[in-house]
Amino acid sequence: MKELVFVGLGLHNESGVSLNGIEETKTADRIFLELYTNILPYFSIERFEAMVGKKVQVLHRCNLEEKNGALILDAAENGKTDFLVPGDPLIATTHVTLRIEAEKRGVKTRIVHGASIISAVIGLSGLHNYKFGKTVTVPFPENFSLTPYNVIAQNKKLGLHTLCLLDLKVDEKRFLNINKALALLLEIEQKRNKGIITPKTIAVGVARAGSNNPTVKADYLEKLLKYDFGDPPQSLVFPGELHFMEAEALVTLAGAPEILRRIVK
Amino acid sequence: MKELVFVGLGLHNESGVSLNGIEETKTADRIFLELYTNILPYFSIERFEAMVGKKVQVLHRCNLEEKNGALILDAAENGKTDFLVPGDPLIATTHVTLRIEAEKRGVKTRIVHGASIISAVIGLSGLHNYKFGKTVTVPFPENFSLTPYNVIAQNKKLGLHTLCLLDLKVDEKRFLNINKALALLLEIEQKRNKGIITPKTIAVGVARAGSNNPTVKADYLEKLLKYDFGDPPQSLVFPGELHFMEAEALVTLAGAPEILRRIVK
Repeated sequence: MKELVFVGLGLHNESGVSLNGIEETKTADRIFLELYTNILPYFSIERFEAMVGKKVQVLHRCNLEEKNGALILDAAENGKTDFLVPGDPLIATTHVTLRIEAEKRGVKTRIVHGASIISAVIGLSGLHNYKFGKTVTVPFPENFSLTPYNVIAQNKKLGLHTLCLLDLKVDEKRFLNINKALALLLEIEQKRNKGIITPKTIAVGVARAGSNNPTVKADYLEKLLKYDFGDPPQSLVFPGELHFMEAEALVTLAGAPEILRRIVK
Repeated sequence: MKELVFVGLGLHNESGVSLNGIEETKTADRIFLELYTNILPYFSIERFEAMVGKKVQVLHRCNLEEKNGALILDAAENGKTDFLVPGDPLIATTHVTLRIEAEKRGVKTRIVHGASIISAVIGLSGLHNYKFGKTVTVPFPENFSLTPYNVIAQNKKLGLHTLCLLDLKVDEKRFLNINKALALLLEIEQKRNKGIITPKTIAVGVARAGSNNPTVKADYLEKLLKYDFGDPPQSLVFPGELHFMEAEALVTLAGAPEILRRIVK
């Protein structure tokens, strides 16, 4: 059967995948795997292969980008093919493109969803999901732009929270960390001088979402700049207006300064 | 050990849970389960119990709301307690409150994440995650307000997409469907007359995210009003400005009118 199934691997390790995801691999003729669109720090390909009882072919960014995914598409035209992807697979826009290409070639596609960094960080922050505005990625210094600053500013103006994903190049083992991302944003503030992101701004840093020991710390930027969040993956949240239960969550679950309780609506 | 672990059940059926979630239940002294904050249409409690080899106590909304979750908190003060929740567990704000209460009582809490309706619908729509604005729930007619209309309008003004969750009362087997939600939004348009949501507006309806046969259909509202999306859960997306790859995704993956390809930036 010509079929391409995107299987979400969820978070953290090879057991982040759902039982439906494991079940799916049993009927696959070919299994591909990528570990570059997000970080699964404790994912072991050997353990995963042992678990599903099949060989898995690991793809790198270049395998997919340089040949427009021909490797996967050719396999899917010749049998049932599973493509294993960190998190929830179609949150990575590059895979949406692959899915479109497959359908255009007459290959049926399906998705087995997995836990996503998006909902995980929102949940861990203790902030209310429906109060988040647009999400943004904070890029490495060499690709830096005003976009993250502007998105945070726009969301704040609307009273909304901002989820900031931090750039990563897993192939090169490079991860932008929270401290560096904050320093970059504060540099922009110094140029723009709008008072959006200052040393007295409160933010929430989240590290290792999906593990048994995530770090979730809310504090003033001047404090977070020096805070040791430990291993990646790391993400940031800039709160907008806080509901009193959100302030309570930041104080109780993320160690925010207690004064937060008194400055909410 | 005093501990409360929120375990996400993911989507669709009892196999939406991750392997980490199953592993977690093995060390639990008590297991509670709720199925009212979201729809898992094919979840079987019997099959789940057989899978984990333990009894699970089902909680209804009143168990948690009327007693501030005392049932779960008391259990967690006396041993390791797992609370199984559809989707990604802390996306439901009511459970954030429970988590805060547990920590205040000195009970450690943890989260095992699951696939969420949020990232699933975004992925299925083919639209780019970082172009979504604020999310909103469309309420039943008896609780209707201008909020969903205003959120869609605000997002559109910023060029952003809106994810609309549709209200549900699982205990009463009541689900707002896409057709009805669209009719309610068009009624508001008739009163406000701002041209935000008209019969010629394009939207994307998504039904049964997480199943093997989701329906994903993009079309003009006048068409979607009569479209049969089948069984719940159902959600809606109102696109803002489309990138050409997003237009391509809506045409190829969601059967949108081909003219969309020509009206994008």
